[in-house]
Amino acid sequence: MQIFRNPINTTWTKIIERPKTESSASKGVVKDILSNIRKNGDVAVREYTHRFDKVDMDDFRVSRKEVQSAIKKVAPELIEAINIAADNIRKFHEAQRRFYGITETMPGVKCWQKAVPIEKVGLYIPGGSAPLFSTVLMLGIPAHIAGCNEVVLCTPPDKRGNIHPAILYAASISNIKSIYKIGGVQAIAAMAYGTETVMKADKIFGPGNSWVTMAKQMISVEECAIDMPAGPSELLVIADDSAEPAFIASDLLSQAEHGPDSQVLLVTCHELIIEKVITELEIQIKTLPRAAIALKAIQNSRAVLLNDEDEILSFVNQYAPEHLIIATRTATNLADRIINAGSVFIGNYTPESAGDYASGTNHTLPTHGWTRAFSGINLDSFCKIISFQEISFEGIKTLGPIIETMAEAEELIAHKRAASIRFRNEII
Amino acid sequence: MQIFRNPINTTWTKIIERPKTESSASKGVVKDILSNIRKNGDVAVREYTHRFDKVDMDDFRVSRKEVQSAIKKVAPELIEAINIAADNIRKFHEAQRRFYGITETMPGVKCWQKAVPIEKVGLYIPGGSAPLFSTVLMLGIPAHIAGCNEVVLCTPPDKRGNIHPAILYAASISNIKSIYKIGGVQAIAAMAYGTETVMKADKIFGPGNSWVTMAKQMISVEECAIDMPAGPSELLVIADDSAEPAFIASDLLSQAEHGPDSQVLLVTCHELIIEKVITELEIQIKTLPRAAIALKAIQNSRAVLLNDEDEILSFVNQYAPEHLIIATRTATNLADRIINAGSVFIGNYTPESAGDYASGTNHTLPTHGWTRAFSGINLDSFCKIISFQEISFEGIKTLGPIIETMAEAEELIAHKRAASIRFRNEII
Repeated sequence: MQIFRNPINTTWTKIIERPKTESSASKGVVKDILSNIRKNGDVAVREYTHRFDKVDMDDFRVSRKEVQSAIKKVAPELIEAINIAADNIRKFHEAQRRFYGITETMPGVKCWQKAVPIEKVGLYIPGGSAPLFSTVLMLGIPAHIAGCNEVVLCTPPDKRGNIHPAILYAASISNIKSIYKIGGVQAIAAMAYGTETVMKADKIFGPGNSWVTMAKQMISVEECAIDMPAGPSELLVIADDSAEPAFIASDLLSQAEHGPDSQVLLVTCHELIIEKVITELEIQIKTLPRAAIALKAIQNSRAVLLNDEDEILSFVNQYAPEHLIIATRTATNLADRIINAGSVFIGNYTPESAGDYASGTNHTLPTHGWTRAFSGINLDSFCKIISFQEISFEGIKTLGPIIETMAEAEELIAHKRAASIRFRNEII
Repeated sequence: MQIFRNPINTTWTKIIERPKTESSASKGVVKDILSNIRKNGDVAVREYTHRFDKVDMDDFRVSRKEVQSAIKKVAPELIEAINIAADNIRKFHEAQRRFYGITETMPGVKCWQKAVPIEKVGLYIPGGSAPLFSTVLMLGIPAHIAGCNEVVLCTPPDKRGNIHPAILYAASISNIKSIYKIGGVQAIAAMAYGTETVMKADKIFGPGNSWVTMAKQMISVEECAIDMPAGPSELLVIADDSAEPAFIASDLLSQAEHGPDSQVLLVTCHELIIEKVITELEIQIKTLPRAAIALKAIQNSRAVLLNDEDEILSFVNQYAPEHLIIATRTATNLADRIINAGSVFIGNYTPESAGDYASGTNHTLPTHGWTRAFSGINLDSFCKIISFQEISFEGIKTLGPIIETMAEAEELIAHKRAASIRFRNEII
């Protein structure tokens, strides 16, 4: 951990610089895969699955039978845990439903909004050593609550052509009925363009490696909306002397184990806490299975000693972390003054991993400073808002002359006439 | 107008195809301008302003004095109209404020959301023959209501280095204090990267030509969020025999006059209305100042006769129009069943131009079918949602074992331990 003691704020930009991540993905290769799948559909998907996942698939679709037999393989304890987590996620996202009233901006001029579910959504769940079933819940449950009509999930098959049972269980309790064994760029392409088997989606959600991220960026320009820009995990912890160093160390390690490019920061006005946390980090990392990964991330990470809480707030808001833990006596007050963060964890008993799995909040969050402008996934992410207006003859009589004057000044005479013709001619 | 009589739904894809727009913008040129301004700031902005706007500017910033003297040049009637429109826009966007409660997903596990204004926003208003002061209201008023801390507006200067007084008046009543005479790609670059004069924005809003659109797309990958993909205007009108053909013709023309690539559609179950509307179009277009433009758009446009309202709904939702007028006896019921549209205008007395200027709804809307996944601009567009959670010791005692089980199954042991260490060790 690099320590910065009372750095003046002109040097902060350097301190909060994200680790440079070099994308291993090649634009040309991604482009080729996209256009090949656009053109050749399932045949091309099959080719890439053979090439990248080393498995031949006749049928990508996971059958209902496959789901049912997989579920039997999930440990009862895990089923119980997933069920409780799903309940919490459901409660929190249900509470995000909005109700809209009608605003009569002028007599006879009624305006209102309505949130309408996005009809067709595609969810991507990456493969890898461990099954990310928690992300299935985080995307599938709000999609179902929002009322999306068709929800498709793509995830890569293992070498025997299977999907981890816990992923299938999470999909099943999230009411996802269409699951395909397709991974990587080919999955994004299949959902963006549609194939003979896979439905074309209006919006694609989910994390992925640099290839998937590049594919999502490319299709987002022309074809299909995407959830948000994705990047390596981040955690910033604000602590004072009421914080428990061992807890903080465990949180920093929980983000650090994601990958060598994860970034963790500790920000405090209390120099002693930095030392104590570093001591704890050294102890805890020793017995960690992913110690090698965590160590690299911790080497990249920073402890920053600042003068007071105002300075801490400026620093944090400038950094705009994905995850923010506030472990200070003044946590509630500080939380109120946070402008840029994805998800905030308040107090000594709120580990970041609670939000990753089970508190109910969503773990799909913007990184790399994008929290300045983007929200994490929530119910709104699966809806769009349509606006409505209904004007009576009385309304257009008042509003008409205003439209006329403004349209005339913008030199759009057909716009003007569409008002004039109405309030100067009443249908009888 | 091309007429399609009872086309079977397999042919709809062809009918609803958007006119092909060839972007005149060159990727290489846009890239060069962006990187030059990123590197050289104001000096580069000055060069491009000289080259593209044919004017030499020492200072881009519009002074308060300049604003005050410009306002005196705006006709009192226009001031009055802008004021009323601004009031309506304010009322409707004020009503979009959301209030968030706390959800206790389990005893001791409190989760909540908060909408926080995006700190720094940049608004772009294109130049051209007519001053788009209405767009200033549509972006500036919600930015102010949301509480954005810094709002910057860029708009190109005319050849004498001035900005149209109506734009300055609209900016002034929208509480926009930082106005710069910068246009095109150079304006997007200045707001995305920041220069010595112009603040770096977290999100950039506003319409523009194909160059501006390309610049926005490019900076959105790395630097700065953008409002939405932009494209040519669209209007779809659903009519039955209760609709007034002259009104519909005036609406179709009001969209058609935007540009030759605008698209207007008339969808109905009543063949007679198509004929009547076409007759009216021919009459009304004759006296239109922008008749040449409107004519081209009308030639591209379509009238579609369908069998019943269900078919109309499928067709409209498949097309996903930016603007939708419903002029039928069943308008309210149809409006309820619309899934994909930007802004909906109900009844005979609700012209689309009401929403462009003065009803109160926002006129910045997704086009090109993006209404399937994107909302128009509203108060949320200027905020992001942060999630919060606060867990008590009692809460983590219940939630901790669930986090442990799930993290273990995802092979993230540091995640597991961040829970274990808390509920297995209470601070005394």
